[in-house]
Amino acid sequence: MSYVAPLKDMNFVLSELAGLKEVTALPGYEEATPDLVAAVLEEAAKFAGGILEPLNYSGDQEGARWADHQVTMPAGFKAAYSQFVEAGWNGLACDSEFGGQGLPKLVAAAVQEMWKAANISFSLCPLLTLGAVEALTLCGSSEQKQKYLPNMIAGRWTGTMNLTEPQAGSDLAAVRTRAVPQSDGTYKLFGQKIFITYGEHDMVENIVHLVLARTPDAPAGVKGISLFVVPKFLVDAQGQLGARNDAYCVSIEHKLGIHASPTCIMAFGDNGGAVGTLVGRENEGLKYMFIMMNAARFAVGLEGLALGEAAYQRAAAYARERVQGRDVAGSASSVAIIRHPDIRRMLMLMRAQNEAMRALAYTVAAAHDAAIHHPDLEQRRRQQGFVDLMIPVVKGWSTEVGNELAYLGVQIHGGMGFIEETGAAQYMRDARITTIYEGTTGIQAADLIGRKIGRDGGETAKQLCAEMRRIEAQLAAHSGEAFAVLQRALGTGIAALEQAIGYVVANYGSDIRAVSVGAVPFLRLMGCVCGGWQLARAALVAQAKIASGDQDAFYPAKINTARFYADHLLAQAPAFAHTVCHGASGALALAEDEF
Amino acid sequence: MSYVAPLKDMNFVLSELAGLKEVTALPGYEEATPDLVAAVLEEAAKFAGGILEPLNYSGDQEGARWADHQVTMPAGFKAAYSQFVEAGWNGLACDSEFGGQGLPKLVAAAVQEMWKAANISFSLCPLLTLGAVEALTLCGSSEQKQKYLPNMIAGRWTGTMNLTEPQAGSDLAAVRTRAVPQSDGTYKLFGQKIFITYGEHDMVENIVHLVLARTPDAPAGVKGISLFVVPKFLVDAQGQLGARNDAYCVSIEHKLGIHASPTCIMAFGDNGGAVGTLVGRENEGLKYMFIMMNAARFAVGLEGLALGEAAYQRAAAYARERVQGRDVAGSASSVAIIRHPDIRRMLMLMRAQNEAMRALAYTVAAAHDAAIHHPDLEQRRRQQGFVDLMIPVVKGWSTEVGNELAYLGVQIHGGMGFIEETGAAQYMRDARITTIYEGTTGIQAADLIGRKIGRDGGETAKQLCAEMRRIEAQLAAHSGEAFAVLQRALGTGIAALEQAIGYVVANYGSDIRAVSVGAVPFLRLMGCVCGGWQLARAALVAQAKIASGDQDAFYPAKINTARFYADHLLAQAPAFAHTVCHGASGALALAEDEF
Repeated sequence: MSYVAPLKDMNFVLSELAGLKEVTALPGYEEATPDLVAAVLEEAAKFAGGILEPLNYSGDQEGARWADHQVTMPAGFKAAYSQFVEAGWNGLACDSEFGGQGLPKLVAAAVQEMWKAANISFSLCPLLTLGAVEALTLCGSSEQKQKYLPNMIAGRWTGTMNLTEPQAGSDLAAVRTRAVPQSDGTYKLFGQKIFITYGEHDMVENIVHLVLARTPDAPAGVKGISLFVVPKFLVDAQGQLGARNDAYCVSIEHKLGIHASPTCIMAFGDNGGAVGTLVGRENEGLKYMFIMMNAARFAVGLEGLALGEAAYQRAAAYARERVQGRDVAGSASSVAIIRHPDIRRMLMLMRAQNEAMRALAYTVAAAHDAAIHHPDLEQRRRQQGFVDLMIPVVKGWSTEVGNELAYLGVQIHGGMGFIEETGAAQYMRDARITTIYEGTTGIQAADLIGRKIGRDGGETAKQLCAEMRRIEAQLAAHSGEAFAVLQRALGTGIAALEQAIGYVVANYGSDIRAVSVGAVPFLRLMGCVCGGWQLARAALVAQAKIASGDQDAFYPAKINTARFYADHLLAQAPAFAHTVCHGASGALALAEDEF
Repeated sequence: MSYVAPLKDMNFVLSELAGLKEVTALPGYEEATPDLVAAVLEEAAKFAGGILEPLNYSGDQEGARWADHQVTMPAGFKAAYSQFVEAGWNGLACDSEFGGQGLPKLVAAAVQEMWKAANISFSLCPLLTLGAVEALTLCGSSEQKQKYLPNMIAGRWTGTMNLTEPQAGSDLAAVRTRAVPQSDGTYKLFGQKIFITYGEHDMVENIVHLVLARTPDAPAGVKGISLFVVPKFLVDAQGQLGARNDAYCVSIEHKLGIHASPTCIMAFGDNGGAVGTLVGRENEGLKYMFIMMNAARFAVGLEGLALGEAAYQRAAAYARERVQGRDVAGSASSVAIIRHPDIRRMLMLMRAQNEAMRALAYTVAAAHDAAIHHPDLEQRRRQQGFVDLMIPVVKGWSTEVGNELAYLGVQIHGGMGFIEETGAAQYMRDARITTIYEGTTGIQAADLIGRKIGRDGGETAKQLCAEMRRIEAQLAAHSGEAFAVLQRALGTGIAALEQAIGYVVANYGSDIRAVSVGAVPFLRLMGCVCGGWQLARAALVAQAKIASGDQDAFYPAKINTARFYADHLLAQAPAFAHTVCHGASGALALAEDEF
């Protein structure tokens, strides 16, 4: 019943939809040969299924424990993390200058999906480290890079992102932590941060905190926030660990899920000040955070997919095994519940949306690689525009869908789904944070309709619609009911999206409150249609394979899955568009004290 | 932040939509005067908010504990239960012949909503007792009634329903528990039952188990199941407690939610046989269970509403209080998050669906009263038909929606929603069982399209559509945008439902597997449209109040809420109908081993 990485679908998406060949041909990725990528994926699948997954339930039940400023990880986590580091997994897509392996983000996305599906609590530790690595790589001084990056990329030290304070969650303008300059060029930090993932743990010898704080004369609001690096143990010029810094975990949260991932309350400077150094320039901390944020948001989107996939596998295994009731059309004896049409419907909802989320996420990852490494400036600009547009969709849509799939996974288990030992409920609990952290779905949707659509008059979004129309036209070239259904549904979906884009563009400037009511429905619409677009692409590839004589049942199943998606999910597109265009009045009419 | 029973909306629905006046005028309900009903609701609101709600979070955190065949309830539960019994709450709608107060089910529905919203774990104990009371009242012998009913109706003894076995969940044909007749007319029972709610606890001196079992020569399948009453302590002819019966709780489950409600594994007959007496006739146990089942399913539907309401209240309170971010249209300083359009959208989704669920559930409860007490046979028959049709909708739709609202409640809390202390996550965990127990949503939907629609050629459902069309026509008589929007949306929704009914009726006999794929989308469609119907009725009443000069802001808010429901929820109806009519092929195409 344990997690098996869906290598076949992953490889299909990587090769046929995300253009792995083109990505590995980009300058800088020469070493990512097809053989190497295949070997990496297979080894990652073994590590995920063999090492991480067996700790998922026990880690949830035991949880991380806090006592006296120390956090003890659940049994097995420290050893698994050591193996993770020894095998070199941490630096897979990091800069080779500091010891990383420099593989494409596309390959890293598939590997990260596996870590997250097998054990999301574990996966958050390297995720946060990589976020900190990215910030230091892009914005750190040469000295900071030399001091921290080799150990962090190797995974011997881990990293954190310290943004949130009790009064500053989504709104970082309210950050209060102070950074006081010292005569030696360092700063002393004072303040409390909450919701700090892996802010303290016992798996490594040092933890490198990146902390948002204000210098004494900083302007108010987001323009006065700076970024600091504050290690748990100070590091000398030779890279040796020195004194314990004044940065302590004062407690951890009692949460709905991700129990094995310690969510820390961090106190900086309670004993004289936590020593930190400025990253980049003063007052530009928010900009640096946003650089990291895109990567982190994409990664959280992968969590939605990963938990959806894990929930699907567990539910499918149970549905094949559990015998209960007769076939509704009659049967001599009881049948496995996978025979029941409603169970099939739920499994297909899980499968179709997982495949759609994977195709979209990997396609975005490939575009991200091209946005950085493509030799042509115009191509890089165009790809970056696509990535920027899609990040809130990958994050917001995939995590909302991931939650829905984890919910369906419980439902398929019936009464057993409510029993924790079954494991289905844990996915639901764990998934619940993904629509919240790194910016709630509402924040993603505001970013989507504002920065990503309102600001450029919908230009990038319209280009995307044109590309989807191109695929729709290709569907028309094929005979058969599935393609006819798919073409009609995708066409209707794109039309709904075009209508919604038109509404957002026309009204964003004049009535931002009304448009904002429809932000999340707009995001859901865009995810729904883009998922259909990706499955349509997959169906076209599958049809070509079948036409070329390939007998693999994978291809007809792919076409069928796309068709299911059309009838069960693309069908919802017009309702989303209606709500976007007409939903504001009802939502905004009541006075606040009427709630 | 604690739960306050929404008496204003409850009274509005009772009086204006469910016909409380007509119900209390039915023969047998003469004592249910308006004053008495008002007093009952106010006292219940105090008990729910003052006694039950304060134990909700602590009960969840402490949980029921098992040791050595005993179950210890969390702190405070035993005392609260004693107060509950002393105040006479248990027998509110029970037969006055055995000590009940004989109030209408309609009034009991409102009161039950309060218990469930305040503390669903607690509420399950009286719920199960009432199920057993109903079975004994309708099917028990005079001796059984005399022996058990007075104490059970008073609540001094509690009851259970023992259906499920490890191999017999949704499919009771697989029940194996044996009942061996003894020379004295009693039976000895042998077998194991699982998922037995309040199968053991320390709040009362005796527990009366109703148990499904097979007699030695019983036919196979559901036609060979009989119902037995098996008390924890044997009861002599004078009603005194005697020997401990051979019915023991051997462990309790470790569940996702309802931690304070002990879910027991019961062993009958491990020490020589559990003494039981037959209820009604041999081999008719399933029929008796189905009598109870309707009441239980309705009550679980109320749980969806109740948890949705509790989640809404908590989220609205947080949204008014939590200051974070500027108004998207600009503001000098940070605002309470209720000012953010997406928070408003989520709160309105909760509010609108809670009001829709309440109106539908109470309307069904009133019809249930009329189905039993109306002097006219034809009226009784017609009302029963409506109740039978709606039970799977109230159960399936309200519980699915309740889960969605609890999910939104967490989302509105942002990061704090994921922290257990906040209380929002508990509603989500507790709600998760409601779409599963007393028949999963899939089972409800199969009942709906089969017994309730397929079997009578859709006749009752079409009558319902005609009634909804009548309301739609009334909307047209009013001017103003809200009524125009509502009329259009309700009309579209009814048309979608009519289309889906036509498909089900036309194809149920010829392709039951295809129709069954659409069963849950059909149920969701019917819930969605019926909710819109009820809110349209509410809007019409509100408009009449406004026209008559009533200045209460409750009425414009009601009209606005109906309009929100139209644009955000009724808009989904065509997609559900599409999936019902076209979704089978994609869902059924794959082979079972392809999952």
